[in-house]
Amino acid sequence: MKKIESINNEHIKALYKLKTKKNRDENQMFLVDGYHLVKEAQQYLKEVLIVDEKDAISGVENILVTMEIIKKLSSTETPQPIIGVCHYFKEEIEAVNRVLLLDNLQDPGNVGTLIRSALGFNMDLIVLSNDSVDIYNDKVIRASQGAIFKIKIIRKDICEMIEILKDKGIKVWGTSLKNGKALNDFEKVNKYALVLGNEGNGVKEAILNKCDKCIFVEMEKKLESLNVGIAGSIIMHYFYSK
Amino acid sequence: MKKIESINNEHIKALYKLKTKKNRDENQMFLVDGYHLVKEAQQYLKEVLIVDEKDAISGVENILVTMEIIKKLSSTETPQPIIGVCHYFKEEIEAVNRVLLLDNLQDPGNVGTLIRSALGFNMDLIVLSNDSVDIYNDKVIRASQGAIFKIKIIRKDICEMIEILKDKGIKVWGTSLKNGKALNDFEKVNKYALVLGNEGNGVKEAILNKCDKCIFVEMEKKLESLNVGIAGSIIMHYFYSK
Repeated sequence: MKKIESINNEHIKALYKLKTKKNRDENQMFLVDGYHLVKEAQQYLKEVLIVDEKDAISGVENILVTMEIIKKLSSTETPQPIIGVCHYFKEEIEAVNRVLLLDNLQDPGNVGTLIRSALGFNMDLIVLSNDSVDIYNDKVIRASQGAIFKIKIIRKDICEMIEILKDKGIKVWGTSLKNGKALNDFEKVNKYALVLGNEGNGVKEAILNKCDKCIFVEMEKKLESLNVGIAGSIIMHYFYSK
Repeated sequence: MKKIESINNEHIKALYKLKTKKNRDENQMFLVDGYHLVKEAQQYLKEVLIVDEKDAISGVENILVTMEIIKKLSSTETPQPIIGVCHYFKEEIEAVNRVLLLDNLQDPGNVGTLIRSALGFNMDLIVLSNDSVDIYNDKVIRASQGAIFKIKIIRKDICEMIEILKDKGIKVWGTSLKNGKALNDFEKVNKYALVLGNEGNGVKEAILNKCDKCIFVEMEKKLESLNVGIAGSIIMHYFYSK
């Protein structure tokens, strides 16, 4: 088994650079932290850095490193002694019936939570707009609790994606507190795309104009708005449940 | 208008101590940051610290301070030039029909989001267990986006509270992936209490045993669990919507 003991090793330095989106995109690789996420990421693993040989994972390259190296590469304060190096996800948009479109979402926690809910409510594909938080951001991955590895997720222009979905005969629903129809007045269908918007500003007007209809989640006027992760999950659950 | 210019002023030192739960409880007071939250907190305001006289709020004591003092007391990195000092909420549990009970919730973001959803879906009262995160934790207040000032919220033993609710003829529903009934099989009622549990462990067995029924939110098996804020909001929305 290959061994690296210096934090100044060139390979470790190269991996450290994966902390920035620019370098992730260039190398089409990202890091995951800890036993649970490394296990969930298995199909995307390129190599694993471990401190103890007993943690070796079959089918990928295992590199023995020091805890100091793990701490340098980890994004958590008290890391477990394992880090996975993963390939980027493939871009597949074939055979999708239920699609979640995220327009300019910025909060990694919201995106991670929405990935969990999308998996739970049987969505086929998540599309993050180019101006949203990075898919491979460590906080997004952590907040998804590994769900990110079990669902198709791509980054693409939302307007472009809406055109593709319409060509496939999929209805696209925006979310908006103005001009929308109450969720519970929608027929429960099995094939749809849902657009959620930025935490402060909602879905962009140009995108709303491309949607077939707009949904709003009924609520008391005394609340200004629901959290976007909550609103999106309520809508996905509605169409999922019988 | 009273003026304080030194961060070593005794009053400022006393306010600084409100950053810990122990001192908040002793003084029955807490701090809120920024224009939006201070405005929302109006009915609880005891005094306001401002940097500019034009920000003065009528009906409470205004104290002119320096930006250095604001920075010392604020819990944000780039604070707005206003901080409110608030009285604790009153404990009222009369005339409630819809109650949200939170058993050992630890994540301030989850609690803040649930407060927003509870307000939006017309709950009357939120009860945090004694082992949950503090109501007056600055992250809870911020995540609630001010909703915390528009709904009754108390801290109390959950088992005790369940007894009180049962005496009032309110049915209490736990949440559990085992032995529960699917949400959509529940009749939409107007009077109920819902217990949500700890992020990792769910609702304590001893509390579940006191519940009339258990609810689970239908989802795909490939997801281990929903985020507690999501699950709770889906349930509250279900009973709220017609």
